[in-house]
Amino acid sequence: MKALVYKGPGSKAVEDRPMPQIAAPTDAIVRITKTTICGTDLHILKGDVPTCAPGRILGHEGVGIVEKIGPGVIVYKPGDPVLVSCISSCGKCQYCRRGMYSHCTTGGWILGNEIDGTQAEYVRIPHADTSLYPIPAGADEEALVMLSDILPTGFECGVLNGKVEPGSTVAIVGAGPIGLASLLTAQFYSPAEIIMIDLDENRLDVARRFGATATVNAKDGKAAETVMKLTGGRGVDTAIEAVGVPASFITCEDIVAPGGTIANVGVHGAKVDLHLERLWARNITITTRLVDTVSTPMLLKTVQAGKIDPKRLITHRFKLAKILDAYDTFGQAANTQALKVIIEA
Amino acid sequence: MKALVYKGPGSKAVEDRPMPQIAAPTDAIVRITKTTICGTDLHILKGDVPTCAPGRILGHEGVGIVEKIGPGVIVYKPGDPVLVSCISSCGKCQYCRRGMYSHCTTGGWILGNEIDGTQAEYVRIPHADTSLYPIPAGADEEALVMLSDILPTGFECGVLNGKVEPGSTVAIVGAGPIGLASLLTAQFYSPAEIIMIDLDENRLDVARRFGATATVNAKDGKAAETVMKLTGGRGVDTAIEAVGVPASFITCEDIVAPGGTIANVGVHGAKVDLHLERLWARNITITTRLVDTVSTPMLLKTVQAGKIDPKRLITHRFKLAKILDAYDTFGQAANTQALKVIIEA
Amino acid sequence: MKALVYKGPGSKAVEDRPMPQIAAPTDAIVRITKTTICGTDLHILKGDVPTCAPGRILGHEGVGIVEKIGPGVIVYKPGDPVLVSCISSCGKCQYCRRGMYSHCTTGGWILGNEIDGTQAEYVRIPHADTSLYPIPAGADEEALVMLSDILPTGFECGVLNGKVEPGSTVAIVGAGPIGLASLLTAQFYSPAEIIMIDLDENRLDVARRFGATATVNAKDGKAAETVMKLTGGRGVDTAIEAVGVPASFITCEDIVAPGGTIANVGVHGAKVDLHLERLWARNITITTRLVDTVSTPMLLKTVQAGKIDPKRLITHRFKLAKILDAYDTFGQAANTQALKVIIEA
Amino acid sequence: MKALVYKGPGSKAVEDRPMPQIAAPTDAIVRITKTTICGTDLHILKGDVPTCAPGRILGHEGVGIVEKIGPGVIVYKPGDPVLVSCISSCGKCQYCRRGMYSHCTTGGWILGNEIDGTQAEYVRIPHADTSLYPIPAGADEEALVMLSDILPTGFECGVLNGKVEPGSTVAIVGAGPIGLASLLTAQFYSPAEIIMIDLDENRLDVARRFGATATVNAKDGKAAETVMKLTGGRGVDTAIEAVGVPASFITCEDIVAPGGTIANVGVHGAKVDLHLERLWARNITITTRLVDTVSTPMLLKTVQAGKIDPKRLITHRFKLAKILDAYDTFGQAANTQALKVIIEA
Repeated sequence: MKALVYKGPGSKAVEDRPMPQIAAPTDAIVRITKTTICGTDLHILKGDVPTCAPGRILGHEGVGIVEKIGPGVIVYKPGDPVLVSCISSCGKCQYCRRGMYSHCTTGGWILGNEIDGTQAEYVRIPHADTSLYPIPAGADEEALVMLSDILPTGFECGVLNGKVEPGSTVAIVGAGPIGLASLLTAQFYSPAEIIMIDLDENRLDVARRFGATATVNAKDGKAAETVMKLTGGRGVDTAIEAVGVPASFITCEDIVAPGGTIANVGVHGAKVDLHLERLWARNITITTRLVDTVSTPMLLKTVQAGKIDPKRLITHRFKLAKILDAYDTFGQAANTQALKVIIEA
Repeated sequence: MKALVYKGPGSKAVEDRPMPQIAAPTDAIVRITKTTICGTDLHILKGDVPTCAPGRILGHEGVGIVEKIGPGVIVYKPGDPVLVSCISSCGKCQYCRRGMYSHCTTGGWILGNEIDGTQAEYVRIPHADTSLYPIPAGADEEALVMLSDILPTGFECGVLNGKVEPGSTVAIVGAGPIGLASLLTAQFYSPAEIIMIDLDENRLDVARRFGATATVNAKDGKAAETVMKLTGGRGVDTAIEAVGVPASFITCEDIVAPGGTIANVGVHGAKVDLHLERLWARNITITTRLVDTVSTPMLLKTVQAGKIDPKRLITHRFKLAKILDAYDTFGQAANTQALKVIIEA
Repeated sequence: MKALVYKGPGSKAVEDRPMPQIAAPTDAIVRITKTTICGTDLHILKGDVPTCAPGRILGHEGVGIVEKIGPGVIVYKPGDPVLVSCISSCGKCQYCRRGMYSHCTTGGWILGNEIDGTQAEYVRIPHADTSLYPIPAGADEEALVMLSDILPTGFECGVLNGKVEPGSTVAIVGAGPIGLASLLTAQFYSPAEIIMIDLDENRLDVARRFGATATVNAKDGKAAETVMKLTGGRGVDTAIEAVGVPASFITCEDIVAPGGTIANVGVHGAKVDLHLERLWARNITITTRLVDTVSTPMLLKTVQAGKIDPKRLITHRFKLAKILDAYDTFGQAANTQALKVIIEA
Repeated sequence: MKALVYKGPGSKAVEDRPMPQIAAPTDAIVRITKTTICGTDLHILKGDVPTCAPGRILGHEGVGIVEKIGPGVIVYKPGDPVLVSCISSCGKCQYCRRGMYSHCTTGGWILGNEIDGTQAEYVRIPHADTSLYPIPAGADEEALVMLSDILPTGFECGVLNGKVEPGSTVAIVGAGPIGLASLLTAQFYSPAEIIMIDLDENRLDVARRFGATATVNAKDGKAAETVMKLTGGRGVDTAIEAVGVPASFITCEDIVAPGGTIANVGVHGAKVDLHLERLWARNITITTRLVDTVSTPMLLKTVQAGKIDPKRLITHRFKLAKILDAYDTFGQAANTQALKVIIEA
């Protein structure tokens, strides 16, 4: 089968690979019909993710059809259309029992990282009963690809952890796909204001169309100042960090109101300064989270009910054979204005 | 009247001062019967608290008798025995209505800081109806002095924010009075383990007597390592920082388990390193808080019911005339083994 | 001044009354500019509310201008445009400090009940600082009249207590003004389905226009059966009782899913059968609540931000002199299709 | 093997039965070392539980040793000492994923009800990986038998649902084993008062020894009146119903304070009167729950840490061969003063 393979830092290739096989009784083999590329895949390609060895098939998102199941799989059978979660969950360990699937002792984020992933014609899914979701009849498959990772990540790490509430004031630092996913899902809770901060004017345009009530271009280095003005000097109830660099986290520290929350979504490669000398007395909360995908069933319901349209995040479409072009387009988002790209297998 | 007055960095004196007067209709004048000294008073004396000007009467803790009330005071009348909260709360502003009295727009921590405090024969209490608490008949006044600040601080900032739960594992970094207040109040929730970390062997002895299930002397620089061993490599559900220096916050970062909470109680004078490059994916929560004293009514009930004995924190007693001795004793805690000192007016 | 006076069961009149006077330092006199009629006013007129004595000026909703203040009022001054809360709150008693203003020991629902109300040119508001809300510049006053009672009631008693969540399934029994207020505010949380149940086809039409995803006419006595069919036999996560009679509460018992909540909003005059022989093992929650109006500041923000349009509830407008006509119209809602009527003073 | 078999209403016998066999890949066979009798077993014997057919081996509590496992079991292996949960949980259905194991679509309370139970030498446990708990080395097995059902039931249905908090006032109606389990586990949260209500003076004596701060004998029909006096007319924050008859539920309605919670634990066979005409405005919460046993891991930790001693509930011990005597003793608790009886296989 065809697959996109990580060949070591800076290198990738489309290769022919043998079909994946059932390795444990609870495995399923899924024929991928649609997948996508994540910012994390670009991190891997830079060599930033040491758990991902060269030779790995990338990808942790997608929808498809169950092809084969191990003898321990009881929820799914061949032919079932399924959504693949980016997080594998055994459903049995102490973390899974607490709903913290991201830390499953035999799962977590392993797909396209420690085991072969979804940017291929077929993929092996461990703990299939608790790591796949049934696709409802009549659902739009492209929309559901957004539920493998980006929507639950924006929602759980940003919106839920950030305690967005009716009438509250939210700022999102970073208007890339993940920040926009937070923007879309924040609106589940009807905040009064959502201020979007980025350096890219195109992305801020998109943010306004997606429901941001104000946008701030951080190019002038005065984003925090501007947000304080926009909020009458009070700051924001929720500051969502959706970039993963120290400067944007510091912006969150600068704009969070007393009693507010900083919800980190970004993947960080370096420590940041936490200004406790100012913040110790301000009654704030800071959260970090690797997505657990506990909200996937809820997101499926809201998509089916038309409360959210995840397809708005999709800007480009490619065939699997052209996945290198897809990577180019996604990797040069500033030029291509790409958000999420769909790859059809 | 006699009062302990801050005379500028490094200097204090017992002086004769005029009786405080009702300045606003909602003020009360309280005759102090017992007060105490807080670590924050030592900070002021070092010159670390710019809001506190020389000439200020110090002290934000104490019990006493209402002497006089303004025309707007309806809950209290002269002669009522009262507990003074370290936090003044108007009960009307947006922060007070949300239970965040620490950020009251005309109150907060002002006593013995922006206005004259309780280390005196009399004190003016603004917003008296919502900043004093009635002392129940038969209550032990000394015990209640611990409810002005130290017990609600240890409880709200450490235990409540730290989400201590039955069966959970807690570590408290710092076994000074505030860490010990967290230790005492953490036991309201029956955690399975409470590990106390300090450099002072005497304080660790006290901690064991107060209910710590394990103690770690951090002198060898391996406190985090030891805690990880004690918890089978898992780390703690709740890490309470009760010192206020970068090193102890870093210890908390090193020992918090996935899904756990770091609850900051310490007063910090410098930024700390937040290792987001390790923590971004560990689903942790960090909280800061200036005590709101919303828990004071609950603490009064638990003291009256004998569920907690705050007098265990009291090691020394002085007359107001000897308050300079009290400061000496409290300031040299390592030698005197002082925790809280009672000053009788 | 002109006022609508309750003259005993079945009787009311527009009378000339003396201007209200400041009776306590914390009182304010408000000149009413707009008020409305509540279902509860009809209950009083039937003689169902024993705390309301003949001679009482009715009304507990409205907006106006502060005319006079007592010496203890500090938040408002004459000339300020204000929203009157139906609940008076001292801000000081144990209930107010817990946010349960409905049970304020010297307030609660007293306006137009135990003291004279707002269906008059002027009204005395006790505990003014904590029972009035400032009207933001440029706000639509008619919309805000809906925030005195009906919107916070529908929201707090129905939606908040009912734990409405993104993707959840909600049923509201009763499409009168209060059920419609629950319908409007439930949408703050993006539930997937809101099923509205009533006997009046016109009100069900309105419900569909206001966002109901399905409506059920209960005339055939099979409402519960129909809801179970609509939910694939599962039942609803939240059942809101917005009528106040046993039959509609029983419907809620019949349709609540395991793990779901019945949130009672209706004012009941008789006991109901609680079928614990079926429900003891179904992990359900039942809540009751007299509105606290703690959500008023949040509702003000969502109205100002355009997240909700409470004016949709207003169907008729009258001058104060014609308030008897307003009562006729409101009292014969089935014929007049009245929801809320505005009375201009 | 020997087993206690339900022979139809009023009838039971010790019989020889074939060893249970693995029926599904996720089954385990457990050799029971200790079991006990539950009040529910007496209900079955009266013919009150229609899901339990004659011929059924009774019992849903116990500890033992894994004898055999199906090919889908990965957490346990033969020889492992295990605690049997009264609730079978697949870990995969929508209810299990929400932590509501009691409503598992292929589990729930089936042991000793819809499938053969634990009052036998061996038992088949479905969904073994998620329905058994490992017994820690050195644990006291007798104590752990209390964790199969009675302790999690008292804790989850009574204490957790009842929101017991530090300083709060709790009443428990019914001092049988389940009420006493609520009493023991309520103390995890340090309430100020726990009032125990029963008709049996011996059980009230036990309650006082177990930590009740007051006891009320309901024989005089004035239990509610007495509780109101004990609480200064305020009522209780939490009322736990641990009997399962209308009268005791009504007592809870009569004593719950505004803002309080009635947590139902009892198994009810008839509807009760819910006095909404009094309660609609009192901001109360009523909960029902079939135990989920989600708290079992936590309870194991608190037992191991010595925070609770469940053995205090054990009054008698029998060999399996004498289980009919055990039923006699347990069934005549008023005479025998039996609470829980241990049966050794």
